[in-house]
Amino acid sequence: MHAYRSHTCADLRQSHVGEGVRLAGWVHRIRDHGGVLFIDLRDHYGVTQVLCDPDSPVFDAAEGLRAESCIRIDGTVKARDASLVNPKIPTGGIEVYIRDMEVLGAAGDLPLQVFGDQEYPEETRLRYRYLDLRREAMQRNMVLRSDVVASIRRRMWERSFREFQTPIITASSPEGARDFLVPSRLHPGRFYALPQAPQQFKQLIMVSGFDKYFQIAPCFRDEDPRADRSPTDFYQLDMEMSFVEQQDVFDAVAPVIAGVFEEFGEGARVDAPETWPQIPFAEAMLKYGSDKPDLRNPIEMQDVSEHFRGSGFAIFAKLLEQEGTQIRAIPAPTGGSRKFCDRMNAFAQKEGLPGMGYIFWRDQGDGIEAAGPLAKNIGPERTEAIRQQLGLGVGDAAFFLGGKPQAFERVAAKARDVIGEELKLTEQDRFAFAWIVDFPMYEADEETGKVDFSHNPFSMPQGGHDALDGDPLDVLGYQYDLACNGYEIVSGAIRNHRPEIMFKAFALAGYDESEVRNRFGGMVNAFQYGAPPHGGCAAGIDRMVMLLAGTSNIREVIMFPMTQRAEDLMMNAPSEPTPDQLMELGLRVIPQE
Amino acid sequence: MHAYRSHTCADLRQSHVGEGVRLAGWVHRIRDHGGVLFIDLRDHYGVTQVLCDPDSPVFDAAEGLRAESCIRIDGTVKARDASLVNPKIPTGGIEVYIRDMEVLGAAGDLPLQVFGDQEYPEETRLRYRYLDLRREAMQRNMVLRSDVVASIRRRMWERSFREFQTPIITASSPEGARDFLVPSRLHPGRFYALPQAPQQFKQLIMVSGFDKYFQIAPCFRDEDPRADRSPTDFYQLDMEMSFVEQQDVFDAVAPVIAGVFEEFGEGARVDAPETWPQIPFAEAMLKYGSDKPDLRNPIEMQDVSEHFRGSGFAIFAKLLEQEGTQIRAIPAPTGGSRKFCDRMNAFAQKEGLPGMGYIFWRDQGDGIEAAGPLAKNIGPERTEAIRQQLGLGVGDAAFFLGGKPQAFERVAAKARDVIGEELKLTEQDRFAFAWIVDFPMYEADEETGKVDFSHNPFSMPQGGHDALDGDPLDVLGYQYDLACNGYEIVSGAIRNHRPEIMFKAFALAGYDESEVRNRFGGMVNAFQYGAPPHGGCAAGIDRMVMLLAGTSNIREVIMFPMTQRAEDLMMNAPSEPTPDQLMELGLRVIPQE
Repeated sequence: MHAYRSHTCADLRQSHVGEGVRLAGWVHRIRDHGGVLFIDLRDHYGVTQVLCDPDSPVFDAAEGLRAESCIRIDGTVKARDASLVNPKIPTGGIEVYIRDMEVLGAAGDLPLQVFGDQEYPEETRLRYRYLDLRREAMQRNMVLRSDVVASIRRRMWERSFREFQTPIITASSPEGARDFLVPSRLHPGRFYALPQAPQQFKQLIMVSGFDKYFQIAPCFRDEDPRADRSPTDFYQLDMEMSFVEQQDVFDAVAPVIAGVFEEFGEGARVDAPETWPQIPFAEAMLKYGSDKPDLRNPIEMQDVSEHFRGSGFAIFAKLLEQEGTQIRAIPAPTGGSRKFCDRMNAFAQKEGLPGMGYIFWRDQGDGIEAAGPLAKNIGPERTEAIRQQLGLGVGDAAFFLGGKPQAFERVAAKARDVIGEELKLTEQDRFAFAWIVDFPMYEADEETGKVDFSHNPFSMPQGGHDALDGDPLDVLGYQYDLACNGYEIVSGAIRNHRPEIMFKAFALAGYDESEVRNRFGGMVNAFQYGAPPHGGCAAGIDRMVMLLAGTSNIREVIMFPMTQRAEDLMMNAPSEPTPDQLMELGLRVIPQE
Repeated sequence: MHAYRSHTCADLRQSHVGEGVRLAGWVHRIRDHGGVLFIDLRDHYGVTQVLCDPDSPVFDAAEGLRAESCIRIDGTVKARDASLVNPKIPTGGIEVYIRDMEVLGAAGDLPLQVFGDQEYPEETRLRYRYLDLRREAMQRNMVLRSDVVASIRRRMWERSFREFQTPIITASSPEGARDFLVPSRLHPGRFYALPQAPQQFKQLIMVSGFDKYFQIAPCFRDEDPRADRSPTDFYQLDMEMSFVEQQDVFDAVAPVIAGVFEEFGEGARVDAPETWPQIPFAEAMLKYGSDKPDLRNPIEMQDVSEHFRGSGFAIFAKLLEQEGTQIRAIPAPTGGSRKFCDRMNAFAQKEGLPGMGYIFWRDQGDGIEAAGPLAKNIGPERTEAIRQQLGLGVGDAAFFLGGKPQAFERVAAKARDVIGEELKLTEQDRFAFAWIVDFPMYEADEETGKVDFSHNPFSMPQGGHDALDGDPLDVLGYQYDLACNGYEIVSGAIRNHRPEIMFKAFALAGYDESEVRNRFGGMVNAFQYGAPPHGGCAAGIDRMVMLLAGTSNIREVIMFPMTQRAEDLMMNAPSEPTPDQLMELGLRVIPQE
């Protein structure tokens, strides 16, 4: 017989009754029922009930067992009494009568109980992660993550993508976030950097003549603490293709993403990739106030400025005299009660706006009536025109926000979410996807007016070289995101592979050729030797697993995460270097005040 | 039609003749045959011949094309004249008559030709890696590497292993090599380290209750320059299992390795895993002078000390009076000529030994005769006893090395290799595997006599706690390597999961409990909460791909490798940090003299 086990703790069934077996696992729970011990023995696969009475030669030892000790037992499989059968677990029809036992690894006092649902401070969970990970939810999350990553790989291989590893110890490449630096010992005073993403390398792989690349790639960013992201590193499905246009990238990646959500979505509806809308960025901002809209929510905002221009509602009428302002309506079907409207108004105030004006429509016996202070101010004709534009009726409401869109869109988007949730308009058990396209290449700083790249400087401007002759703020890029249920899960672009267009694009943002060569030299040099048109995207692995696991805490889907303060409490990192290490690296630590 | 291609450059056949097609790729070669241009158009998949004569509307543009420019062409598929068919390539029966063309990415003067076999200095190849990678051999090597890694993953999944990612930014864990350090910005003066291997994390995954783990894991070691290894990072197939003994690990990993070598070995014979010998370390050193023997070579060395003790060959007889010395014979079947023996003797001298004594046997008409100076010195009886022990006959030879084994084993192993090669005894087109087992846990420093771990301090000593009561140098570990054709491709162990045995094992090597807790605290703490018995191994990915690609230069199987001096010439790393970066990290660079 095997030294540790003949079966796992999930294997035994009625058909094994009478057999001598050997099991190994952890003492999940131990109960004493009138001198008879019931031990729930747990391993990665399941739980088996082990029975020990005073006739067993190991009764005394079993009595002394502590929770989470790792043990090996020998025993005989017995059928449970019909009244004691547990239909909830696969081994619930049997139990094992123990004859021999060995403690393989003893457990001391536990800082965290594995059995049960007790909640612990995150610090405790991370310090004793190996206990936390034994809990059922964490076992499930880690298995989910592993299976999602494996499924992605399989799907990419099936589509003839090949995975190539790109360097992790490499050059600093200022792409927006802060680099982690790695001092060089062989070249004191000089530093490597960990890649923020394999962006330049995957483009170089295309220039090297490989056609379809992917990688489940670690990305490193020295981020300030924030609850929903890892302060050090995260993983993405990174992919790139040569000789493609935007739609080719969509056609390649959408079935992979949809397939993964179907496979692991536990029956939730997954929109078919060919139905995913392609929404221009400007339209997404107008309709949803967000470039990652939750399309499970059917509410679409509309510009209703014309109805307020010169109207009796002086606040809006006056606002509209300023350039760049707008009145936006959020329709709220079934939200037509003063109570609901007041609650939403209060919500907007809590979010920092003066409030949200509203109109709601009720049945007045001989017809529909618009209620609320706004309706009174602008009169029945305008009110009715608004109702008709929004397609609302009795029992519905609409909320209004005014000003410069940048100033109210964040709150408008949030209000749309809350309205959808509260009125139960937002569909449950569904993953709703949308491509957001036509991102602007540039944006102007609100205060200085200085033009800079709004997203990825490596994207190809729509219209190519000529498009860069006009107003930079009008230039759109072949750049896209995929939104799912309110999260951005993919981001990508068709790249700018032509040095002359690249230099011109950078010049518009104030970077001259020498600076571009200095910052992105590896890639720019390569483009002089026959670069193919190429494009791709990156999908957030942690984000996708979070959506599938139904959690909004990234640390629930990472095996050994850092704290938000970027500390590893279990392994004690970061820690002080030895003087020898610093000397070898040619570094001195500046004493902190 | 697609913007860039209707087919790849490997797709077109006789059946496409007459079709209008669109292709994209690189100008591999362009030839002018009496005013007709032949362009070999190359993409990742293959090469297609493109024909252009002065009647084509793009003749002038085609005449100006430069090698390695990336182009798109439209044209008509034509059958080649029977005399011009090229049976060596799949598209060799057709050519495409060009009607339209677009330069997608122009190429300037090339520092490195993609077409042909010209050799370039490694510095040129690495600086222009994107051109180097377009060459056929590099395309093949990268595809091989990617396919090997994918195959390994598939095989591990099939065996119910799950891949989990372990931290890359983590704590320093002194495991022998030098760590790369990463300064923390949020905690100035403190440093993270990049993992030398996920050793502690994979053990913690077992303590966390996961049963079978693997990862294709990047490992980081700040190594001094050496030709056959990467100075910064390398990849390994890292795996670990709970509730296993040594043989279980062998049974899990051997079919994976064998399967990969069969799949990618291009027909070379792969020994079946169940036939892989398990050779104790001491026996491997005796028979092969190496713990990574090349078993394609049938030669086995033998201890022949007894035949020389008190013999007429004074040098050996005298040597044997010192403790710990030995005379080792290397049999050389079919090596029985003075010319060969003298050549091998010269080889040993070049390797720094005084020489290798030898005997060879020839047919003297009325029987066998032993020749060579050694035979004369020790006389016919001893010579004959040696011949019989070694199982040699007419036409064979044997070489002799004496002294302390540590002093001659390296040369003996090399001599065995050379003899096997030169006498064509070493089988070609075969991958021969052997498990090397029973490694000693400890070794004594030759000068100081201080006892230290000889390999991995985390291995379980054979015999457990009690075994540590005797002479440490007698203690063997459950530690093993897999050798293939003279290379170590796998290394692993059953781990020491019991804190009390671990502290005792470390104490023997001079580390007290507090130091162990300090250095390996994360793991040692975890072992107090019910650790399962576990073990595993790691297989070198780069090494395996090198063997399969038939190269001994690791940079041939890495997409973007560092130079031996740990510099990335293409991306310019390492480089000088900005003063802001240093200030944020709280570091100062010490000026170098």
